Formats: sequence, structure tokens, C-alpha cells
Amino acid sequence: MILFVDMDEVMADTYTAHIEYYNREFGESLTFEECMGHEVWQKVPEYRKDSIWQHYYQKGFFRGLRPMENSIEVLKELNEKYSVYVASAAMQFPNSLLEKHQWLDEHFPFIHWKKRILCGDKKILRGDILIDDRSHNLENFIGRPLIYTSPHNIHTNHFERVNSWEEIARELL
Amino acid sequence: MILFVDMDEVMADTYTAHIEYYNREFGESLTFEECMGHEVWQKVPEYRKDSIWQHYYQKGFFRGLRPMENSIEVLKELNEKYSVYVASAAMQFPNSLLEKHQWLDEHFPFIHWKKRILCGDKKILRGDILIDDRSHNLENFIGRPLIYTSPHNIHTNHFERVNSWEEIARELL
Repeated sequence: MILFVDMDEVMADTYTAHIEYYNREFGESLTFEECMGHEVWQKVPEYRKDSIWQHYYQKGFFRGLRPMENSIEVLKELNEKYSVYVASAAMQFPNSLLEKHQWLDEHFPFIHWKKRILCGDKKILRGDILIDDRSHNLENFIGRPLIYTSPHNIHTNHFERVNSWEEIARELL
Repeated sequence: MILFVDMDEVMADTYTAHIEYYNREFGESLTFEECMGHEVWQKVPEYRKDSIWQHYYQKGFFRGLRPMENSIEVLKELNEKYSVYVASAAMQFPNSLLEKHQWLDEHFPFIHWKKRILCGDKKILRGDILIDDRSHNLENFIGRPLIYTSPHNIHTNHFERVNSWEEIARELL
């Protein structure tokens, strides 16, 4: 059984990093809870939207992300039971490519380089399960799509949902 | 129709680059023709084998490769007729990730970032045609595998073979 796992907002807490970068830059106090139901850039004033986008181009942004709670332990177990591949749509941000690879080396060294995919769109994946936070990735997947909860997707109803890595463990282990 | 195209030794002339680097480093005059039927590292003395492997880690190696003859023109046309994805097993060489992306930007800017895949193994690709020089990639492909001739694979007989981009054009356009 081939299991694909997305990185940003599934393995790595990209959303919180955006909030922290934003608050630091502008002396604000935006919270994760306030963002529920929205993309982070929808929760900042129009003239600051671009600053959110700019995080993706900052050296160290991807390298410094925190792994999601319990993701390391659960993925270690999943990796014994499934053929686990990390599949990240990283091509849009060229500087993220090496950072993502190094991030995996640090936090998920048990995911061999053979099992890492940095791609553009995910239509071309052939496997059994995909855990992702983005509908456009899940929609084109032939297999079992699981949506991982992130503030921006809480109103999406047409996929089986997992809210945490604990839930993934209950569902797949 | 989804068409996957490998980079090294299909779009990019990696084999010739190895020979050129080797000849420059050791003052040798190894030729492409002498290498027929072999991997390049099989054609150098045992104690220099490692130097071939080291090319992969040299800054600029992948960035400086020459595109294969006619590959740009033919891929431009194929890109009109097929959904063309570049699929490169680049994960083994982390420094190649950004270089490969930039190389595509320079030589194949018409291949959108959404259509670029840097992966480990290629078992996970879902599509119709794969052009690759390596048997282990072609063997696991569900679709039509095409082997692109490289000195190391001339004795492989169990795949439909293409010897040049002109032949690919005749076959697929």
C-alpha cells in the first residue's frame, strides 16, 4: 500500500509560521484561532497581503518549520506498515527544494531519499492514500483522499477528514 | 495523454559531461564511442572510479549540462500535443535540486513549474508514456515505456527503443 503525505500544513506547521513571521514583522498579535475558516493572507490588511507571500521566498522559512505534533512518531510507525512517500508541491518556490530535503533529513531521516517527491501538481501520483490539506490535490487523486485539517479548509466537506496525527494513527495503524 | 520525460541522459547530456570532466581532471582522452556498452565509471581505472561519482556533488555540474540535440525543439512540439512532465530522480543529490530547476528555466522555460517532478524512485508515476534511459525506472512503469539510448543501455533489449529526439518526434508527433 502506497501512502503519500503532503508536507506543508500536514507534516510541517507552515500556517503557524506565517502568523509568527507576520506578528514579528508588524508587531501584531494575530492568532491561529482568529484565522479559522480562512487563508492567513485573508486575515491581514490588504496592503500587507504581499508580505505573507514573501515568507515563501525568505531563506530559512521552510528549513525552520516545526513538525506537526505527533507527526514524527506516527509517521515512523506508518513507515513500517505502508510504503510512505512524502509528496510536496514545492516547485513554485525553488529555494524551498533544498530546504525541504534538509528539513526531512533532520526531522524524518527514516524517510529515505527514494521516498521523497518534490513536484508541481499532484495529478501524476499513483498510489493508494493521499493525506493533504488542499482540495485541488485531493480531487485529482485516484485512491483514498484524506483531508488534513488546516484553518483554510475547515468548511470543506467532500473529503474524509483527519484533524491530527493521533487521528491518522487511529485510522491507518 | 501524460508523457513523462527523464532529464539525465535523455534531455541533458550527462554522460558526455562525465567524460569531459574526467578527461580534464586526469589529462585523459576517453571518448564516447569507447564507452559503448558500459557505464562511464566502468571505463576508468578502479582507483579513479570515485572521481566520476564526485562529479554529481560538484557545484555547477547539473547546471552546466548541454541539452541533447533537438530536445528543445521536439519537446516544444510534444508539449502542444501531450501533457508533458519532466521526471528526474534527483533526490540522491540534494545540490542538484535547484540546479535542475534553473537548468529547466534556461533551456525549457515552456515546461511550467507545475510540470516538473524531482523524485527518488519513479514507481509512483501515473501516466501514459515514460521516456527514460534506466531499466529500473521503465520496468515499474504502467504505461508505454521507451528506452532512450545511452552508452550504458545499448544491450538492453526488452523495451521499445528511441535513439534520438528525431526518432521520438517521428514516433510521437
